[in-house]
Amino acid sequence: MLVIGERINSTRKGIQEALQKRDEAFITEEVKAQIEGGAHVIDLNAATLMEGEIECLKWLVPLVQKVADVPICLDSPNPKAMEEILPLCEKKPIVNSITGESERYESLIPIIKEHKPKVIALTIDDSGMPSTAEDRVRIATDLIQKLTADGVSIEDIYVDPVVTPVSTDVSSGKAVLDAIETIMEKFPGVHTVCGLSNISFGLPKRKQINQIFLVLALSKGLDAVILDPCDKRMMANLITTLMLLGEDEFCMNYINACNEGKIEVA
Amino acid sequence: MLVIGERINSTRKGIQEALQKRDEAFITEEVKAQIEGGAHVIDLNAATLMEGEIECLKWLVPLVQKVADVPICLDSPNPKAMEEILPLCEKKPIVNSITGESERYESLIPIIKEHKPKVIALTIDDSGMPSTAEDRVRIATDLIQKLTADGVSIEDIYVDPVVTPVSTDVSSGKAVLDAIETIMEKFPGVHTVCGLSNISFGLPKRKQINQIFLVLALSKGLDAVILDPCDKRMMANLITTLMLLGEDEFCMNYINACNEGKIEVA
Repeated sequence: MLVIGERINSTRKGIQEALQKRDEAFITEEVKAQIEGGAHVIDLNAATLMEGEIECLKWLVPLVQKVADVPICLDSPNPKAMEEILPLCEKKPIVNSITGESERYESLIPIIKEHKPKVIALTIDDSGMPSTAEDRVRIATDLIQKLTADGVSIEDIYVDPVVTPVSTDVSSGKAVLDAIETIMEKFPGVHTVCGLSNISFGLPKRKQINQIFLVLALSKGLDAVILDPCDKRMMANLITTLMLLGEDEFCMNYINACNEGKIEVA
Repeated sequence: MLVIGERINSTRKGIQEALQKRDEAFITEEVKAQIEGGAHVIDLNAATLMEGEIECLKWLVPLVQKVADVPICLDSPNPKAMEEILPLCEKKPIVNSITGESERYESLIPIIKEHKPKVIALTIDDSGMPSTAEDRVRIATDLIQKLTADGVSIEDIYVDPVVTPVSTDVSSGKAVLDAIETIMEKFPGVHTVCGLSNISFGLPKRKQINQIFLVLALSKGLDAVILDPCDKRMMANLITTLMLLGEDEFCMNYINACNEGKIEVA
């Protein structure tokens, strides 16, 4: 199970300020807190800085790597940023993200061929956003075929089935869950990943929805997730679920988490 | 989704006292609280009163039916109790439980043939408790075949795959989950049910484990559950999960539960 910490994202107000000010202490604390919470990878997104993005990432990547010996997930809509920043990554990074959209695919694939990162592949193509499970599986199938034909190892592909809000379409949660299950069965070796929070858009008590959606996604085989590792209940649910799915020998991770005060109860 | 409230059980100290004292007010409150929490059926277990069980149930069943217009789930190891109490049930009751053990099966089936209740069928047979998913499916298959041959409608059968502690065998959670999925797929029309709390026996923070195990079981198709409907987070998880599985049109149950303060967040 791969946990990608999502907190260093310039759409968050405190982070945007810290990035603009090049506040080392603030970022250092954010990285440490995420590692302590259980992150294995740190996602970096400075996209709202616009033309300042690349300069910011050039400062950010070495700083994060100084604080923690973990890979970076480079989250940018800008192929130029990928090209300049990937060479700075000490551990095999994750490109977040490629899609099946022709223009985006073609602009990123030369960089992926050169640097051989892991790749998050969103199930979006030129026809747009997916709505059903079948849409997601079809686009995932196309993307996996194209990426492997372009030399990407299937173990380096993390398919993201694009979480859409259950408030606008009550079948969208199940569509994502069914897509995860089918993709994991159909393509041995591939990974699936998702961000959780879009699922609850427009509804009250969003944390509860996101926390439960993680459990359901894990039950379908999801093996990577982008989340806030400082959300204690989210991490408690993750640890508890892995135990109940038989992936925690002698329940030791769970028991240790209890001893460390990481499992809270209502 | 059928929620069976488990609180009126004489193994609980307060309940045992109330049953012995024939404390109408106490039992009335217990029933009301469970209905308010979301129970559709009230489980009654007076087994620890031993020879006093039948007399107690004769007092208890009419009292519960006076308080709430819901079916009763009659939870007794004693066929004689079933025989005497089933005729007192105004709505189609649930017999909790029959098993594949020859002696138990033969002693209960005449009563079931006569009164035609719903039946909880535990996957235990003369070879003992199940350990794997395959054990559970095999015993369930035998029981479903025997019960339907004996005239029980498949829609009246609630297979309970026998939850065993993950602390003694880390594969036992997954075994139960896989059994639920297989039984629901293999026998259209049949129901599955389980109690949750055995899963966490021997581990700390048991509520957290039970609450997450419910979510996982629902993801596999579980359509009835025996639980404490006064456990707010358990019920919040149930409501949230059903929405995420697409079983809550326009998210109205979830939104109403939020408005009623039933969805808490950490």
